[in-house]
Amino acid sequence: MSEGARPLFEAVKRHIRENVDPIMEEYVRLGEGREDRWSFAPGQLELLEGAKEKAKAAGLWNFFLPNAETGEGLSNLDYAYIAAELGKSPLASESLNCSAPDTGNMEVLERVGTPEQKKQWLEPLLAGEIRSAYAMTEPDVASSDAKNVRCQAVLENGEWVINGEKYYISGAGDPRCKVMITMVRTSEDGPSSQQQSQILVPIDTPGVEILGPMHVFGADHAPRGHMHIRFNNVRVPEENILLGVGRGFEISQVRLGPGRIHHCMRTIGKAEIALDLMVKRGNSREAFGRSLIMLGKNLELVSRARIEIEAMRLMVLKAAKAMDVLGNREARVWVSMVKAMVPEKTCQIIDQAIQIHGATGVSKWTPLAELYADVRHLRFADGPDEVHHMVVGRNELALH
Amino acid sequence: MSEGARPLFEAVKRHIRENVDPIMEEYVRLGEGREDRWSFAPGQLELLEGAKEKAKAAGLWNFFLPNAETGEGLSNLDYAYIAAELGKSPLASESLNCSAPDTGNMEVLERVGTPEQKKQWLEPLLAGEIRSAYAMTEPDVASSDAKNVRCQAVLENGEWVINGEKYYISGAGDPRCKVMITMVRTSEDGPSSQQQSQILVPIDTPGVEILGPMHVFGADHAPRGHMHIRFNNVRVPEENILLGVGRGFEISQVRLGPGRIHHCMRTIGKAEIALDLMVKRGNSREAFGRSLIMLGKNLELVSRARIEIEAMRLMVLKAAKAMDVLGNREARVWVSMVKAMVPEKTCQIIDQAIQIHGATGVSKWTPLAELYADVRHLRFADGPDEVHHMVVGRNELALH
Amino acid sequence: MSEGARPLFEAVKRHIRENVDPIMEEYVRLGEGREDRWSFAPGQLELLEGAKEKAKAAGLWNFFLPNAETGEGLSNLDYAYIAAELGKSPLASESLNCSAPDTGNMEVLERVGTPEQKKQWLEPLLAGEIRSAYAMTEPDVASSDAKNVRCQAVLENGEWVINGEKYYISGAGDPRCKVMITMVRTSEDGPSSQQQSQILVPIDTPGVEILGPMHVFGADHAPRGHMHIRFNNVRVPEENILLGVGRGFEISQVRLGPGRIHHCMRTIGKAEIALDLMVKRGNSREAFGRSLIMLGKNLELVSRARIEIEAMRLMVLKAAKAMDVLGNREARVWVSMVKAMVPEKTCQIIDQAIQIHGATGVSKWTPLAELYADVRHLRFADGPDEVHHMVVGRNELALH
Amino acid sequence: MSEGARPLFEAVKRHIRENVDPIMEEYVRLGEGREDRWSFAPGQLELLEGAKEKAKAAGLWNFFLPNAETGEGLSNLDYAYIAAELGKSPLASESLNCSAPDTGNMEVLERVGTPEQKKQWLEPLLAGEIRSAYAMTEPDVASSDAKNVRCQAVLENGEWVINGEKYYISGAGDPRCKVMITMVRTSEDGPSSQQQSQILVPIDTPGVEILGPMHVFGADHAPRGHMHIRFNNVRVPEENILLGVGRGFEISQVRLGPGRIHHCMRTIGKAEIALDLMVKRGNSREAFGRSLIMLGKNLELVSRARIEIEAMRLMVLKAAKAMDVLGNREARVWVSMVKAMVPEKTCQIIDQAIQIHGATGVSKWTPLAELYADVRHLRFADGPDEVHHMVVGRNELALH
Repeated sequence: MSEGARPLFEAVKRHIRENVDPIMEEYVRLGEGREDRWSFAPGQLELLEGAKEKAKAAGLWNFFLPNAETGEGLSNLDYAYIAAELGKSPLASESLNCSAPDTGNMEVLERVGTPEQKKQWLEPLLAGEIRSAYAMTEPDVASSDAKNVRCQAVLENGEWVINGEKYYISGAGDPRCKVMITMVRTSEDGPSSQQQSQILVPIDTPGVEILGPMHVFGADHAPRGHMHIRFNNVRVPEENILLGVGRGFEISQVRLGPGRIHHCMRTIGKAEIALDLMVKRGNSREAFGRSLIMLGKNLELVSRARIEIEAMRLMVLKAAKAMDVLGNREARVWVSMVKAMVPEKTCQIIDQAIQIHGATGVSKWTPLAELYADVRHLRFADGPDEVHHMVVGRNELALH
Repeated sequence: MSEGARPLFEAVKRHIRENVDPIMEEYVRLGEGREDRWSFAPGQLELLEGAKEKAKAAGLWNFFLPNAETGEGLSNLDYAYIAAELGKSPLASESLNCSAPDTGNMEVLERVGTPEQKKQWLEPLLAGEIRSAYAMTEPDVASSDAKNVRCQAVLENGEWVINGEKYYISGAGDPRCKVMITMVRTSEDGPSSQQQSQILVPIDTPGVEILGPMHVFGADHAPRGHMHIRFNNVRVPEENILLGVGRGFEISQVRLGPGRIHHCMRTIGKAEIALDLMVKRGNSREAFGRSLIMLGKNLELVSRARIEIEAMRLMVLKAAKAMDVLGNREARVWVSMVKAMVPEKTCQIIDQAIQIHGATGVSKWTPLAELYADVRHLRFADGPDEVHHMVVGRNELALH
Repeated sequence: MSEGARPLFEAVKRHIRENVDPIMEEYVRLGEGREDRWSFAPGQLELLEGAKEKAKAAGLWNFFLPNAETGEGLSNLDYAYIAAELGKSPLASESLNCSAPDTGNMEVLERVGTPEQKKQWLEPLLAGEIRSAYAMTEPDVASSDAKNVRCQAVLENGEWVINGEKYYISGAGDPRCKVMITMVRTSEDGPSSQQQSQILVPIDTPGVEILGPMHVFGADHAPRGHMHIRFNNVRVPEENILLGVGRGFEISQVRLGPGRIHHCMRTIGKAEIALDLMVKRGNSREAFGRSLIMLGKNLELVSRARIEIEAMRLMVLKAAKAMDVLGNREARVWVSMVKAMVPEKTCQIIDQAIQIHGATGVSKWTPLAELYADVRHLRFADGPDEVHHMVVGRNELALH
Repeated sequence: MSEGARPLFEAVKRHIRENVDPIMEEYVRLGEGREDRWSFAPGQLELLEGAKEKAKAAGLWNFFLPNAETGEGLSNLDYAYIAAELGKSPLASESLNCSAPDTGNMEVLERVGTPEQKKQWLEPLLAGEIRSAYAMTEPDVASSDAKNVRCQAVLENGEWVINGEKYYISGAGDPRCKVMITMVRTSEDGPSSQQQSQILVPIDTPGVEILGPMHVFGADHAPRGHMHIRFNNVRVPEENILLGVGRGFEISQVRLGPGRIHHCMRTIGKAEIALDLMVKRGNSREAFGRSLIMLGKNLELVSRARIEIEAMRLMVLKAAKAMDVLGNREARVWVSMVKAMVPEKTCQIIDQAIQIHGATGVSKWTPLAELYADVRHLRFADGPDEVHHMVVGRNELALH
């Protein structure tokens, strides 16, 4: 971590400790047992806004974003240390306006948005007034190959007419979510990497039909959700396109590098929580006359988890540094390395923490089941493990 | 499979195909989106009762249970083949009156129940009129060591007074569930394996407080559920004890052998479903110009899954045969072998099937997420993997 | 095991115990420290011949081979039980005239040999007077694809003229080895599975140049060895071809099914030895105040090894039974399943046994290092794991 | 790497390329097929001495050792980068006078030796005139628990009289090896960590009986070897003790920290070689119409190997840095982390490289079999994996 970033790092930890951790219990309690699960409960947003105001007041707002004019800002490396802390608390990111997919969307708008696009969407996002979604994955094709995108946009009379289906659009159920960056196919011809574009679609545009929430191991994560949406002749102005026709993949380069790294950084925070719970539980329960942690292979599992966590942390830091030094493009092999490594190993650590808890490990009494579902989901989100291994493997061949 | 059992095996498969599979879709649809999740929807039970009647009419009712007088009945080996089929359908077992934990409870009542206990509880269970639960696991102790049971029963004026807490009592949320076999501590002295007893507790007894449903990866499996129950001075007649004071572990020997085997048998049916879905999905989707199944390691994963399934099947059959030939006690090492082997390997197979489906794999569009949760849960239910490995390992040492 | 085979099984075990085990120590001692490592030491063969004579006298000779006229003989299933015993002793197979690759060679000659070929080679092999080799693998191509065979045989004036290179020809260093069944390419045209033939090549034919022994993890297994041989215009009579031109793969079907199964059966005997040594060592050494076997994950490793061994055993028996019932062709998927499963898992078990022994585990003081090398070698001999997984995976796809 | 160390790093790489790689082939060839395997062949040492002279001339001699007076020297971190290069060549370390166990022995003598001890042993070691051994492991006890040492030294008339057995004393077969640092028990009473001492034993002392070479997977690594030695009333002067009576473990702290790190660093160089060979072989061979590397899981294995190698490298660098900054004692958990991680993962990578080579992978045609044996051996040398996991696991518990 650079010396310059340390005060921010400490301030973020203090903010989480003082402003976020204390509201968690009430926030969760308010959300329980509601009939209308797809809205926030009275009081929930007020709690969250309170934490956001405190973050703003403390100058901790939007630190993820480089200065628009100078390009200066937090390095990926410094951000990595902070993100690992954010990963330990479900509300921390949002309280600092740096939740996914908003950060990626803001970065994209900042870099490639027109002045009008920035005014309409980036400003309220930066202010934390609205939220956004990213509509990429489709139910009918293998999204592991990004070229398979089938949702179609056709230009008619100065409007894009969009038809198709997207699913697992995270956050699109949130009543505050106002816009989706949508990956579409705008051409059937030409090089296969120039047939896609990204278009801003306000979520209340006629024809946007929310078919329902998708589940992750039985959880729908209401009210934010992972929505299944059909686009029925959805019409948006021609100027809603980002960067230009056929440049959809180019934009993905902008967003996915840091986005994947941020996910991995937060995931390491989750692995830390799992290990912490594993040790605490193993120390506090007894069977056959010894504490659980001293039975059989348990202590070795603790050791292996610690070793893997440190190895993952160093790899993420190295990848972050590579992005800082080499740029997103050159660092993409490092990004793929950590994306293929971190979620898989973290799933194993969480799974072992579950096992030592017994049935409590899959209950709502610990965060483990939800952590598992989150991290398991990450093994195919933003490119499945297999595709990242393909990137790394091919790069290795190219070096010979 | 013995020649004698083949007609039954075929009849069961036909019953599932003709009477159970056709009602599944409507049964699930009826249960969706209900406000009162802890009851059955109008029409659901009627569907199920229809299938039960057809099973009775076809002579397929209660085949799991040996003849009370002659002791004759389906061998464990023959049952194993049938159970693998049952595991493929969520309603098949209940339509044939052989769901867990009812089968175990009926076996126990049949073997050790008094005439009065049989009349009151076994008869309606055999008739499929009521359902039952087994209250074993406690939230405050490591249940991997069965001697840790803390829920207490004290004899006062001809009544057992029960105080304590149990959780993950599967099926106790079902409105038809009328009785729980409850493991309690009846003594603090004497040999540690004779301090426990099992007592029949009608679920509507005053003092039985249902604290709420437990979750398995976010799912509560309403309306059957896995309930968390507190016993507040619950009073039942002295004669509700099973077999005798201090004989709780002895009863466990009766129930757990076949019970664990039945679980493992059904689990193999689940592994088959996962492999089937993995192949179908992998064949039907394309990426990078090839079907998914032909990419990378996928075909090898299919092969490894097939090999493991066949090895698990043979091991379960061998364990079932050992129980038939050697009896539950001598066969217990075989039972532990399959209990330690089958859920772990099946989890891996389901996990790989999930990965090849991408996000759809954790949605409700396939049964995979639910299968995963079920089988993952089995890795600590009825003794965690670690305890079964301890049994097998110690037996190996004893042979030297 | 069939009732009829049990007396043979018992007789073989007795033979090993009484006639083979007692000569092992002296046999090994005689072979040590010799300058001429590529011959047997004085007395070694005499010891072995003594055991062979006793086997003949006891009617235990050549039981592997079905009756030439009736086709009757030991089933693969019954053989499986016996082979697991043979795998536990390095000399047992040879003392009963059923070592690899002689058994496969004798089976092939028995099934497809001409009367002259049988008289010249099968008879002395059946008598145990000579030994033989199988020249298949080539150093310059990926032998995982059998169609890659490059060693060439051209018919000239009634003679096959053979040119090419083979390596890892097991047993070709044995002074008693007189003939090699050699896989050659006899055509560059036509269907790719009909370009290969198998030809009998006496090892003393001019042009057969032994380039040297190949090593397996540093061991050359002198004096039997795994030889590297160059064929320089080696001329053998036209009638030395087996079955016919272009029928090389057809013959492989005959040999490889049982051959692979026999290897796997013996391998299970080796896994048993490793587990036995692991338990004995773990029980006899102490560290940190407990026996090694009770420390950390060791007891669980014992359990997992036992479970895997039983699963492998059942799979091999099932595959043997499939060959008996369905024939080699239909049973080939079962054969591939066990070939892909057994050596890989056995390597892991031996590796764990090594670890618990510490440095002694890789020394010559235990058989573990040699067992490891043998079984590791098997993971690419007779088709590497990957090819067998391909067979199993493709078969699974074909079922859908 | 620090800027200051880069010239050294480059000079070492150049030295290996120019002075070591070119002599390897002849060095190996000279050593082949000798009758007297326990001496160097004529010419071998001359080749080696030539490379040593060039290293001295280039100022690359003894850079491993901190300045005796100022304590300054190469940091562990900088050494780590160099050691990874050394690991790629079997002769590189010796050509620079930094082979194991000489480096550890020289470090110990430098730090705790008396002026006389330094004059007699350190000076010729630093000059590269003699070599040395470290006699630690015993055949009759579990050496994983260092307190188990049984070899006894009793003080009689100003002489230590040593009796006991040691094995796997690497390098003790080398005719140039003149002295062994020997771990002995000097007391049966007192705290169990103060009963051991380390004593300098000239290898030609009467009573030092070399029983023979130990093997590692069949290889004896003549002429250096891993010797099995019996101490029969071996008498050395009282002043041959290092540091003081009962301070054997204290000395181990000095040596083992850096020693283990150096091993791990070199091991990463070996993993790089294995990956390099895996890729080259996989690219150059074809089967089923594609290059091997593009078949099945092979490309994913390449990716996983690359990811693991980078993770291991970062962990070793971190541990080296921890030693520089925190000292050996505080850094010991980091040392245990890499010692438990690196050899195990590297064995897997080498094993996969072997598999893609087929039989050639276990032959002498590639270095893979020897690399495997070396690295496999490391999994129990200098503390088995299990003990290092115990250290890491216990430290984790202590943090809670």
